[in-house]
Amino acid sequence: MSKSIAIIGLGAMGTALAKTLIDAGNTATVWNRTSARADALVARGARRAATVTEAIAASDILILCLTDYAAVETTLADVGPMLAGKTVINLTNGRPDEVRAVAARLEAYGARYLDGGIMATPPMIGTPDAFILCSGSADAFEKTREQLAAFGQSHYLGEDPVLAAVSDLALLSAMYGLFGGYLHATALAGSVGFTAKQFLPLVEPWLAAMMTALPDYAERIDSGDHGRDVMSNLSMQSVAITNIVAASRSLGIDPAFMEPIERLAKKRLAAGFGGDEASGLIEAMRGK
Amino acid sequence: MSKSIAIIGLGAMGTALAKTLIDAGNTATVWNRTSARADALVARGARRAATVTEAIAASDILILCLTDYAAVETTLADVGPMLAGKTVINLTNGRPDEVRAVAARLEAYGARYLDGGIMATPPMIGTPDAFILCSGSADAFEKTREQLAAFGQSHYLGEDPVLAAVSDLALLSAMYGLFGGYLHATALAGSVGFTAKQFLPLVEPWLAAMMTALPDYAERIDSGDHGRDVMSNLSMQSVAITNIVAASRSLGIDPAFMEPIERLAKKRLAAGFGGDEASGLIEAMRGK
Repeated sequence: MSKSIAIIGLGAMGTALAKTLIDAGNTATVWNRTSARADALVARGARRAATVTEAIAASDILILCLTDYAAVETTLADVGPMLAGKTVINLTNGRPDEVRAVAARLEAYGARYLDGGIMATPPMIGTPDAFILCSGSADAFEKTREQLAAFGQSHYLGEDPVLAAVSDLALLSAMYGLFGGYLHATALAGSVGFTAKQFLPLVEPWLAAMMTALPDYAERIDSGDHGRDVMSNLSMQSVAITNIVAASRSLGIDPAFMEPIERLAKKRLAAGFGGDEASGLIEAMRGK
Repeated sequence: MSKSIAIIGLGAMGTALAKTLIDAGNTATVWNRTSARADALVARGARRAATVTEAIAASDILILCLTDYAAVETTLADVGPMLAGKTVINLTNGRPDEVRAVAARLEAYGARYLDGGIMATPPMIGTPDAFILCSGSADAFEKTREQLAAFGQSHYLGEDPVLAAVSDLALLSAMYGLFGGYLHATALAGSVGFTAKQFLPLVEPWLAAMMTALPDYAERIDSGDHGRDVMSNLSMQSVAITNIVAASRSLGIDPAFMEPIERLAKKRLAAGFGGDEASGLIEAMRGK
């Protein structure tokens, strides 16, 4: 079932979302601070709104895809009362405190608020590789299920609007860990003459093998028992961690990315958990 | 072809290596500072050496698997002249400067020196999942090819003895990035009520998807061009990175693991590379 949808914010992501909605037969009204960004979408069949007010008036569903929450606040500053009965899907990357504040304000105006985190780059939108985390109004999720499905796989995480934003930031942290580790590794290998292309056939299968440890880590984390059937304990691992930091420094690579691991490991060792698996580092991250 | 091999150091890894060599029909002479560690191996067919001197005298090949290079120095302090004509495989985790010093000293005594990094936990030894990085004497690698193959997949990286140690530390950095990112992510998700088991079906496919970006990153790194066909630029990503650090703090998670990424990203932005892909962070790690 097609809907009338306003898309507010036409960066690369907002544009990809609007295209997908148009191609799926929805009525799309688009608005961007710099109006020229809408030209290609208008050529594809979108209606151009001169103001946010106009975009909202024309639509039952409002999709926000802005740079940050400051832009969300500015954009919605004067239109609150118009949002009564509307469904607002906010796909702007933000912190949980920002999400909670916006959700409360829009719900007070009578809007159904759904917060979403897009786990994809713009070219992935409309493919099954894109996935979108949602939380907040279950009613809003039901009403827009087809539209969200056009973007990619959507996952509804629960009524608390912050669940999607926190999960989004969590997944991005996992990604930055992966990328940071890969870049640090490639810089180290590069310092003794390996090109990134030469190093790739070593690091790719190695990371894939290490990924298989995650289910075991998850069990240890949930049980709180990091000391059962340990394969490689933190006390032994800390020798290698210290070597990584020292070798990075001597080879001219900034050890910054590995120093927190060393510090967290030392904290666990000092607390008497040297016999634990490295999964126990999560307790140090939690301030224990 | 079976060989006479001394295994020096019987921690979990040294013991696993010795078992594999015995089971493959080699003559294994074992030594450990705490002699009782050898009992199970002797029951399996190993010869117990009372001293390192005795172990070396009985063998053509010497495998060292000690805690660190200080232990290597202590263990080999008085036996240098006995090593002329012997093949020494050093599988102790160390820094490149330590490897270079030991390699030079043993080669001066007339030993063939092969340095190795074991990328496996002890239970993986003897399976195709274990892999062993080697560098140093090509002759030593040829002579022990069968023995190394019994441990797992072996990769000879070149004549410079430090190549294996640096690659070993590099792969471990990649692993700590992956694990650190996963643990940080799981701690964040846990702070809003997700168990690690609930979060796993989100984070596992996400990390697998992100792994597919590495070949593109490798090309950018080798070409030095991080600005071509950018999917998600650092300037936009830095909003999310800052949100991760702030949200971690507000949710009671130590942001330490994400702070270096934030600092490196800011450094690149300040240098005018906000339009680059995140692969450009490697330039900041290299001090550029």
